[in-house]
Amino acid sequence: MTDEQATATDGLRGVFSGRLLTAAEDMAPFLTDWRGQWRGAARAVAQPDTAADVAAVVRWCAANGAPVVPQGGNTGLSGGATPDAGGRAVVVSLARMNRVRALDTLNNTITVEAGCVLKAVQAAAAEAGRYFPLSLASEGSCTIGGALSTNAGGVAVLRYGNARELCLGLEVVTPAGEVWDGLRGLRKDNTGYDLRDLFIGAEGTLGVVTAAVMKLFPAPAARLVAFVAVPSPDAALRLLDLAQNRLGPGLTAFELVSELCLELVLKRFEDARDPFAARSPWYVLVEATDLISEARAREALEALLAEAFEAELIADGTVAASLAQARALWALRENISEAQAAEGKNIKHDVAVPISRIGAFIEEAQAALARAFPGVRPVVFGHLGDGNLHFNVSPPAGQPHEAFAKLRAEVNTVVHDLVAAFGGSISAEHGLGVLRRDEAARYKAPVEIALMRAIKQAIDPHGLMNPGKVLAP
Amino acid sequence: MTDEQATATDGLRGVFSGRLLTAAEDMAPFLTDWRGQWRGAARAVAQPDTAADVAAVVRWCAANGAPVVPQGGNTGLSGGATPDAGGRAVVVSLARMNRVRALDTLNNTITVEAGCVLKAVQAAAAEAGRYFPLSLASEGSCTIGGALSTNAGGVAVLRYGNARELCLGLEVVTPAGEVWDGLRGLRKDNTGYDLRDLFIGAEGTLGVVTAAVMKLFPAPAARLVAFVAVPSPDAALRLLDLAQNRLGPGLTAFELVSELCLELVLKRFEDARDPFAARSPWYVLVEATDLISEARAREALEALLAEAFEAELIADGTVAASLAQARALWALRENISEAQAAEGKNIKHDVAVPISRIGAFIEEAQAALARAFPGVRPVVFGHLGDGNLHFNVSPPAGQPHEAFAKLRAEVNTVVHDLVAAFGGSISAEHGLGVLRRDEAARYKAPVEIALMRAIKQAIDPHGLMNPGKVLAP
Repeated sequence: MTDEQATATDGLRGVFSGRLLTAAEDMAPFLTDWRGQWRGAARAVAQPDTAADVAAVVRWCAANGAPVVPQGGNTGLSGGATPDAGGRAVVVSLARMNRVRALDTLNNTITVEAGCVLKAVQAAAAEAGRYFPLSLASEGSCTIGGALSTNAGGVAVLRYGNARELCLGLEVVTPAGEVWDGLRGLRKDNTGYDLRDLFIGAEGTLGVVTAAVMKLFPAPAARLVAFVAVPSPDAALRLLDLAQNRLGPGLTAFELVSELCLELVLKRFEDARDPFAARSPWYVLVEATDLISEARAREALEALLAEAFEAELIADGTVAASLAQARALWALRENISEAQAAEGKNIKHDVAVPISRIGAFIEEAQAALARAFPGVRPVVFGHLGDGNLHFNVSPPAGQPHEAFAKLRAEVNTVVHDLVAAFGGSISAEHGLGVLRRDEAARYKAPVEIALMRAIKQAIDPHGLMNPGKVLAP
Repeated sequence: MTDEQATATDGLRGVFSGRLLTAAEDMAPFLTDWRGQWRGAARAVAQPDTAADVAAVVRWCAANGAPVVPQGGNTGLSGGATPDAGGRAVVVSLARMNRVRALDTLNNTITVEAGCVLKAVQAAAAEAGRYFPLSLASEGSCTIGGALSTNAGGVAVLRYGNARELCLGLEVVTPAGEVWDGLRGLRKDNTGYDLRDLFIGAEGTLGVVTAAVMKLFPAPAARLVAFVAVPSPDAALRLLDLAQNRLGPGLTAFELVSELCLELVLKRFEDARDPFAARSPWYVLVEATDLISEARAREALEALLAEAFEAELIADGTVAASLAQARALWALRENISEAQAAEGKNIKHDVAVPISRIGAFIEEAQAALARAFPGVRPVVFGHLGDGNLHFNVSPPAGQPHEAFAKLRAEVNTVVHDLVAAFGGSISAEHGLGVLRRDEAARYKAPVEIALMRAIKQAIDPHGLMNPGKVLAP
């Protein structure tokens, strides 16, 4: 630490009781994201233990003109939690604020601090005989504060909604360093502007989320998984429609997988096995959940598949007969990202379009990419039930990956221009951070950007909250 | 019309193609609410046909310093759609913007203009084989724009959420007279601040909602109703817990009714019949819905009641055997307001508390009222599944109603102080308007009011959008 840095943080050490890191080696893990895509600098990393501590740190930052960069599990994919290179920021890590403050089984709510790891929230709910449905790949290390600040999605959105829809109330430290106690466990409250939803998804640019009241649900008795072969995305859509009408809220996942995705998983994962004798251009993983019994879930799922087979929506299908088989089928979907990464670099997109237009979008996007970058291989999969595709693009077979990776901006533009033409979103569940900030500004109407800027200016007039994220400075 | 008024609106007539009312008799219905509780004045009532028209009217108002008062079906209960007495406002009635712009059965969305009557939205959904669940007493005349601007609730919130949770996207005319096209039919979109939810529930104080994309659902095959006698609100809560664990999302209504409520309905409605031989202090109406068949709904509901009887949660119960019986049971709940009104004036409260605390709240509120106003009769009913009670208070038997009505502010204070102590809401589903504006300011923390004011100032810097509603000027 330089003398200047020491002076710069001396005052900070005195204003709160939590941990303060200033040594370069201590700060290092907080100054880059988990994939190492972004790197920044900071004068200190503060780890407060209470909302009052967070408020004290923020007040100190406000008085000293120091940017505040809130950070949860640091598992984001858009660079939203990494400070810039300026070195003036204080990273506020919520990791030590990880208590479950309350759990109310009759109100079906859990009140948790922002630093609670998602898996711990799930576990606390389960221990009380309840179910907390938010579930993502990073659940073992991401925090509830980060999930709310990016409005995280995951595999249960179809039935239970994203982080926003699971949240009833928030505690937030404002840019002025005041604590707003909005920890209401109410299903109905129409007493003014919806501050809660403004802070959710704001990626820490309007304040620091320090705690939240989240909804709980009855614990399902059984979850059954089917894997089916479908001739096209349009057939998958018609199957979705049928499944929603037959299973209703018993339909808890509906995931699309392309033939290439399955091929990559079979190639890279020794344990993976093709469920069918013949290859199909597309597959769908369907999950049915029942509150009462496995028998009911099985009956509903098998009846659905029989009807779909009759209607020629599916060419083949299998229902997992055991938990191990269910895991194996889910693994075919969940291991796609890793299998594709093992092949080499690829260019990622996290997009959403209206569900009804998914088939047309996939077709046009594949055609546009083939025209602009002959031979590239789209690796298409995602949460079809939410209209959310992870439309990743691998280089032509045999072509060097490093050269291809340099085309990222151009490939993004081809895909995202089409997303915009389809009335879609260029960041369905990962947020903007710095990764998609400027693209979002290009695709959004000026009136929307002006409204966003007016709100930012009103709530954070000195622009110290996570500057450069969501909106360009 | 005075010469001054004529001059004041001449320019307005030229800027848009819709209807403009300036004669006193034409304007009269727009200058008071349906119950006649508030009366105001305006220089004109504009009835635009398009969002561009609304924008033109708002720009004219901005240029001429005229307040804008948006109005839908004018069925609100908090005075949010009535102009003040100043006479400078332009009422913008959305009534003529009542088209269904689009309906997408695969995306499960309907795009409607703000002036669409709620019942018409339900009907359009049903015609397409889908279900639009928002349902309230005023559904025959309230509009979707008003429902969104007040974040309306109703009888299906337990399963489907309130207006906010049913909305995917909005079109809004900003205070500057620009059209923000946020009509996205997406289930996932994490590209910046949540403007949608900021405009929802803002009661027209941040802009004019002109259209919305709403969620649709599969149409249920059957709805079954049971009416049960329970010894206490706490028993009702334990029954709710059991019902949620047995029926899950098949539980679509859970309404509490006190003995006095039932008595009033039986007294005032000739057709009403007590379902039970013996009177009970409390009742619950339970509705179970099934996507597939009535038999399944009946099986689930009867199993629930048997289990609840076994556990001594309910003393008696009946399941409607026909549609006519189901209507008769629902009428016992739906006619309470009218039966109470027929008795004379009463003092109303639309409150929410955490569901788990409903029993304690009712007990303490009854005791506090008995202490402060001996002999008053609380008429307690509401959406127990949402923690939302309509906690109305009638005068002591035989006491003059007019004198009692003058105690409104004092009675409100006793009930709302307790709501605040229970961490509840003083307006669960009716909004603030002018009715609860000052009370809300008293109960909310200064930091929350300051945030709301900062947002209002940022988006409507000249304070012309529905001034005096939600926030004091």
